[in-house]
Amino acid sequence: MNVADYIADFLYELGVRNIFMLSGTGSVKLDDAFARKKGMKYICSRHEATAVVMAEAVAKLKNNLGVAVVTTGPGGTNAIAGVVEAWVDSTPVMVISGQVSSTQYIKDRAFGIQGFNIIDNVEKFTKYSALLTDPNLIKYHLEKAVYEATSGRPGPVWIDIPMDLQSKEVDLDNMIGFVPPICDINKTHLYDLLIEKIISSERPLIAFGKGVKISKTTEKLIKILEELNVPSISARMANDAIPFSHKNYFGMGGIRGRRCAARVMKKADLLVALGTSCSFAFLGEDNACLNSGCQIAVVNIDEKIFTRKDLEIELGIQADLDNFLSYLLKNINTIKQRTNFKKWLGLCQTIKKEYPMVVDSMKGNPINSYHLIECLSQLTDSRHIFINDAGSSAYISSQALNFKDGQRELTSGAFYTMGLTLPLAIGAAVCEPNSQIIAISGDGSLELNIQELQTININNLNIKVFVINNGGYASIRDSQDAMCGGRYTDSEQILNFQKIANAFGLGYEIIETEDQIENKVKSVLSESSPMLIEVVCDSQQHMIQPLEEMKELENR
Amino acid sequence: MNVADYIADFLYELGVRNIFMLSGTGSVKLDDAFARKKGMKYICSRHEATAVVMAEAVAKLKNNLGVAVVTTGPGGTNAIAGVVEAWVDSTPVMVISGQVSSTQYIKDRAFGIQGFNIIDNVEKFTKYSALLTDPNLIKYHLEKAVYEATSGRPGPVWIDIPMDLQSKEVDLDNMIGFVPPICDINKTHLYDLLIEKIISSERPLIAFGKGVKISKTTEKLIKILEELNVPSISARMANDAIPFSHKNYFGMGGIRGRRCAARVMKKADLLVALGTSCSFAFLGEDNACLNSGCQIAVVNIDEKIFTRKDLEIELGIQADLDNFLSYLLKNINTIKQRTNFKKWLGLCQTIKKEYPMVVDSMKGNPINSYHLIECLSQLTDSRHIFINDAGSSAYISSQALNFKDGQRELTSGAFYTMGLTLPLAIGAAVCEPNSQIIAISGDGSLELNIQELQTININNLNIKVFVINNGGYASIRDSQDAMCGGRYTDSEQILNFQKIANAFGLGYEIIETEDQIENKVKSVLSESSPMLIEVVCDSQQHMIQPLEEMKELENR
Repeated sequence: MNVADYIADFLYELGVRNIFMLSGTGSVKLDDAFARKKGMKYICSRHEATAVVMAEAVAKLKNNLGVAVVTTGPGGTNAIAGVVEAWVDSTPVMVISGQVSSTQYIKDRAFGIQGFNIIDNVEKFTKYSALLTDPNLIKYHLEKAVYEATSGRPGPVWIDIPMDLQSKEVDLDNMIGFVPPICDINKTHLYDLLIEKIISSERPLIAFGKGVKISKTTEKLIKILEELNVPSISARMANDAIPFSHKNYFGMGGIRGRRCAARVMKKADLLVALGTSCSFAFLGEDNACLNSGCQIAVVNIDEKIFTRKDLEIELGIQADLDNFLSYLLKNINTIKQRTNFKKWLGLCQTIKKEYPMVVDSMKGNPINSYHLIECLSQLTDSRHIFINDAGSSAYISSQALNFKDGQRELTSGAFYTMGLTLPLAIGAAVCEPNSQIIAISGDGSLELNIQELQTININNLNIKVFVINNGGYASIRDSQDAMCGGRYTDSEQILNFQKIANAFGLGYEIIETEDQIENKVKSVLSESSPMLIEVVCDSQQHMIQPLEEMKELENR
Repeated sequence: MNVADYIADFLYELGVRNIFMLSGTGSVKLDDAFARKKGMKYICSRHEATAVVMAEAVAKLKNNLGVAVVTTGPGGTNAIAGVVEAWVDSTPVMVISGQVSSTQYIKDRAFGIQGFNIIDNVEKFTKYSALLTDPNLIKYHLEKAVYEATSGRPGPVWIDIPMDLQSKEVDLDNMIGFVPPICDINKTHLYDLLIEKIISSERPLIAFGKGVKISKTTEKLIKILEELNVPSISARMANDAIPFSHKNYFGMGGIRGRRCAARVMKKADLLVALGTSCSFAFLGEDNACLNSGCQIAVVNIDEKIFTRKDLEIELGIQADLDNFLSYLLKNINTIKQRTNFKKWLGLCQTIKKEYPMVVDSMKGNPINSYHLIECLSQLTDSRHIFINDAGSSAYISSQALNFKDGQRELTSGAFYTMGLTLPLAIGAAVCEPNSQIIAISGDGSLELNIQELQTININNLNIKVFVINNGGYASIRDSQDAMCGGRYTDSEQILNFQKIANAFGLGYEIIETEDQIENKVKSVLSESSPMLIEVVCDSQQHMIQPLEEMKELENR
């Protein structure tokens, strides 16, 4: 068995079923091995960065490794943008790249055809990276890479395989494996401290992030919330973890969050942040989203958050969420006996009713995108996966999508990266063939990876691309209004989306007035073929910034 | 004056007139400063990687700094692919990126909105990179960056400017500048050794690379070739430096070079490599392109080439080409008296006649792309700039374009990067508005940055995009034929180019038979509006590999 086939077998055994690639001479044996592997499907992307993002979608949805294969030189450097995305969003993605032949490999320069020392240049944003120098080391590299990608704070890993080694035989009897370290996770004394903090607080608020998904603890968390009558809000990447209708959940918090979540945050006296990085978008500059007397307690597997000088953490515990939440559950009756948060939860529920994202004045013409997004929520069910990426469409999606039980969302969490909607949608459609994908993109963002419309077309994926046409980069215009006296630098000319859909072989629909939304969306969702739906929205509409709104109301 | 305006002024004084950008909130003050700067033009790209490649085109054509401005987080990481391209192709490009506010900047993570410690991650493929921490240091960083980008082996540089500092005032009286080091360049004793080598050789061959363009020594080189009757060949990035009709020039050498150049290489007993990296594509594995008795002498500003273990350099001189060639010219009469290479040059000229790239059998139907490329050569003049990037279209362009005096070519030199044709063409059209751009792309490569067709459309650039439709990734198929038993992994479905041209507002023409070439190309070139011209070529056609061809002939 050669190295390329060994890799394909190894990943198949691990449960990997979809491989995203852009073929290349430098990875030709790898590509071929995956293409020949029975039970695996390979999907050709039209850019290496998008191949990695497609793999990220799989990793995020399946909570397992996503894999992309790229060629040497520009194949690898094109992939970097996607890998950093996985790094900042804690997503376990493996990139396998072809490299020039060992005899042509030279550090720091490109004397070979398309040669580049990629591993030296990706170390700081991968959890593990290695250049294969001996066929028999492939087992070790793969095992260590998978361990690193999926343990602790997950993240991307990268293995670089020179062309000559791709087809070298491995000696199955003489391969070294990787033995993962054993960690001591007994932190119960710290857990007790945190429990005491919760007991002595009056208005505790649990803020959960992607960590609950990674640790698969959503059910435990919900049980705790219900038992203790504690309210909760989410950070950007866990907005879909609990249905919005749940009585203990108040949507996404932060400066770009829901109006009700922002108000609940301001009232809390203890924020218990579980598996979230507490980003500036979430807490605001100088923790402006919190009341000045609010204490912050953090449970996170990533030690980096505890080194932040800008964040005053009262109690920080570096721990696995499952370990912590299991302990909490074990002691739930004791905590219940010593607490009563019913009134506090009731207040939060009143706020939820009083501060909806969509009000009646938004329901006219031109179409307000908040109203559009809420309609999409109403017209979809558990088999729908929502995708968005950057700018106003992502901003508004995270505020106005009322997730139902089973509905999921993929987005660019830390980076708000323009152009990721299409590759994320493709990855989702490929790994969840029974789902229908609602991909929401701005007219500006769509351009960055527009080539992937062809991938959607060729693979006939059940993706509905809703393009919010509001005349360009709406969120950047908001910044320019605020900071540059309304001088805009982006191109004002918008694509002709009907022609674009037609050129890439997709169906097309346009929604121009409010009264068309329901019928047209229903009709579009009733079919499984890929479509581009242009929604002409108000180009003058601004985004709701709940913190600013609260300040204004106070000052009146 | 604030930091952003200071940068705009500084670059204007340096002669920079075109700025390529994708607007963003993180770079909003920078974008605005460049947009307001009189005499500067900003061009909005549709991806950050392409913005950098557009800047590279300017740098390559003008032999001056190219500049791109990108936003924080994904803006910077998207740009990386373009920056590595500039690194491997020795191109002086400056990236100026927005960064999150200084108060939100944290190493190794992205807690700020779109924050990423980009400078830590680009050090190894930039000649200088810096995060601005004090407004008054901006002068130093800019001066040092420009020095590093343009001195020695040129390359990319990167300056990262936090949002809060972009609008901070600078104190013009209290700024520190950068003082470049003084280098001793007296290497005449080594030059004398090389001259003796030339004198004692019988069949010397000068191989020149991009170094002649960087050092602006093409005229000196031509004079030396003519005076000494020495033949010459070029490496990939200097194919256009000397017209192909010149009696001392035999085209591009190497495993992907011209048939005549390969034969001349095989006959030489001394290869004098000037300003070229002597890549594997140029010399072949184990220097297979050279006769086993051929000595190699190298003059190069980059020390890295002298550390290569795979390359047996007889005499290596790390020096500036202008310094070396000036010395040679000063001693030209002495050398002339002691040499007579007329017969050797005559032999080369006979070979040039005997081994054309295009033979009569290629002139039928379906269209052979060698014939097409030669026709494009014949139908163009000094105001044309040729662009190509990767795969068969680049391979064949470098073999079959017979450059005329004044004609120039831009390509992806070391990386053969798919998708660069469009951004390179845009950069060229913007900085040379009186030229007409012949952009040659494969049907596969076009997809990677297809969004930039919109940039061509919006700016109404004089670019003729010739798409060679040969049914997909032809050069990768060649590899798959050779290495994977003809199993192909790329998508076979080709875009509908007529609809694509229409969707992006470009004119369209199709050339399907050999007899249409002349008239249709003439008609297309007679207008200045942007167009996409689809040329349906033989999908079964292979690329000519002169070295393999010679071996086969020998073995007969």
